[in-house]
Amino acid sequence: MVETIQWTGDGVVMIDQTRLPREETYVTCRTYGEVAHAIRTMVIRGAPAIGVAAAMGVALGVREGADFDLVCDTLARTRPTAVNLFWAIDRMRRLYASSAGLPREALIDAMISEARQIRVEDIAICEAIGRNGAVLVPDGKTVLTHCNAGALATAGYGTALGVIRAAVSAGKRIDVFADETRPFLQGARLTAWELQQDDIPTTLITDNMAGHFLHSGRIGCVVVGADRIAANGDVANKIGTYSSTLR
Amino acid sequence: MVETIQWTGDGVVMIDQTRLPREETYVTCRTYGEVAHAIRTMVIRGAPAIGVAAAMGVALGVREGADFDLVCDTLARTRPTAVNLFWAIDRMRRLYASSAGLPREALIDAMISEARQIRVEDIAICEAIGRNGAVLVPDGKTVLTHCNAGALATAGYGTALGVIRAAVSAGKRIDVFADETRPFLQGARLTAWELQQDDIPTTLITDNMAGHFLHSGRIGCVVVGADRIAANGDVANKIGTYSSTLR
Repeated sequence: MVETIQWTGDGVVMIDQTRLPREETYVTCRTYGEVAHAIRTMVIRGAPAIGVAAAMGVALGVREGADFDLVCDTLARTRPTAVNLFWAIDRMRRLYASSAGLPREALIDAMISEARQIRVEDIAICEAIGRNGAVLVPDGKTVLTHCNAGALATAGYGTALGVIRAAVSAGKRIDVFADETRPFLQGARLTAWELQQDDIPTTLITDNMAGHFLHSGRIGCVVVGADRIAANGDVANKIGTYSSTLR
Repeated sequence: MVETIQWTGDGVVMIDQTRLPREETYVTCRTYGEVAHAIRTMVIRGAPAIGVAAAMGVALGVREGADFDLVCDTLARTRPTAVNLFWAIDRMRRLYASSAGLPREALIDAMISEARQIRVEDIAICEAIGRNGAVLVPDGKTVLTHCNAGALATAGYGTALGVIRAAVSAGKRIDVFADETRPFLQGARLTAWELQQDDIPTTLITDNMAGHFLHSGRIGCVVVGADRIAANGDVANKIGTYSSTLR
């Protein structure tokens, strides 16, 4: 599977999601400013992936010796809709505050270690979502998905696409219809590409075809990401998610 | 208002709909083969407009002295979904059959006259659709439309957009949300351009936004074209029409 974001000796390495699917190129961010720029310019997107990027950005900022509040504020201003961004920065802030007495090298190591831990935890969370979701996927039907809640949107494996991956691993005979997801085409550019890499049979459809296929009975379930889930089960997600559940 | 198709001394002149909205250029077809090519390559589209084009193409073919059945068969093969195409060719066939005794020049004049008459009748039909439809449009709300059932899809005025034009003429305070209409973007390229020419306030939306705005109550009515209307009221139209009526 594709590596969305990694901490390396060189810096934070991200696959450039603005160039997919035509080019598989990687960007290395060596400063927190470069991470902020990568988030703003959609090199990396997807709330969980942005959370990991922000945490790694904070660690870079501490290593640079930049003003800590400036680092956090700069990264927090990059994407207003990604709740994981604020969550990850807060987690790094708490660690920073509780590490006040540490020598500088130990502080840097602790910050890097925490950012890498957030990445590892995110993959584990996606795998758990996959295991739990896979049992709900009807066998022998098509799964509809909207936008990209895949490995590329997370540290790896994906939330919605994690459910699809886990269903395939469990032996379910499914294929995927991916909404192209206008206006930014994350479904066409990212989801279709990502599922092809895993040899999961995938058909790209225009968003306005979803209603037809839902009505026809071909779609066994719809699996999408969520920017927020309210206590009553309401979900906030990318425009078009609502239309992709109506028949 | 834009002239979609006209019979001139030079031949059949059509606005090139593949180049809108960036360029307003016109194509002159001097042979039935050029008309068939224009239909196949989407220079002209929209069932009523294609019907007029086919009738004018038959008249050109008779003037060229081409084999009549070959002319009709060639034009009939250009667009399988446009019922007006077959209807218009049949009408020209009937006139040709009933004109067997005419001298050649009189036959040519009769064919040209019939084709021009089909164009004039189509505009009158659109205006009648507009008058009848306008009374159903709620005042002070937004009208949603899908694809282009406008002046560009007909000989002029339009079917769905004719209703909108007539409602505006009747003094109703409406604006229009135009679905962009993937995959070919007729809403983005043609409907938005055409309504702007008439100074009707128009907002271009992605197809997947329709459900949100229908649910919010902003949309007062949805007006779309129809490839077919069954006796029970069922409508067959461009993919996405169904999704644009669900909330």
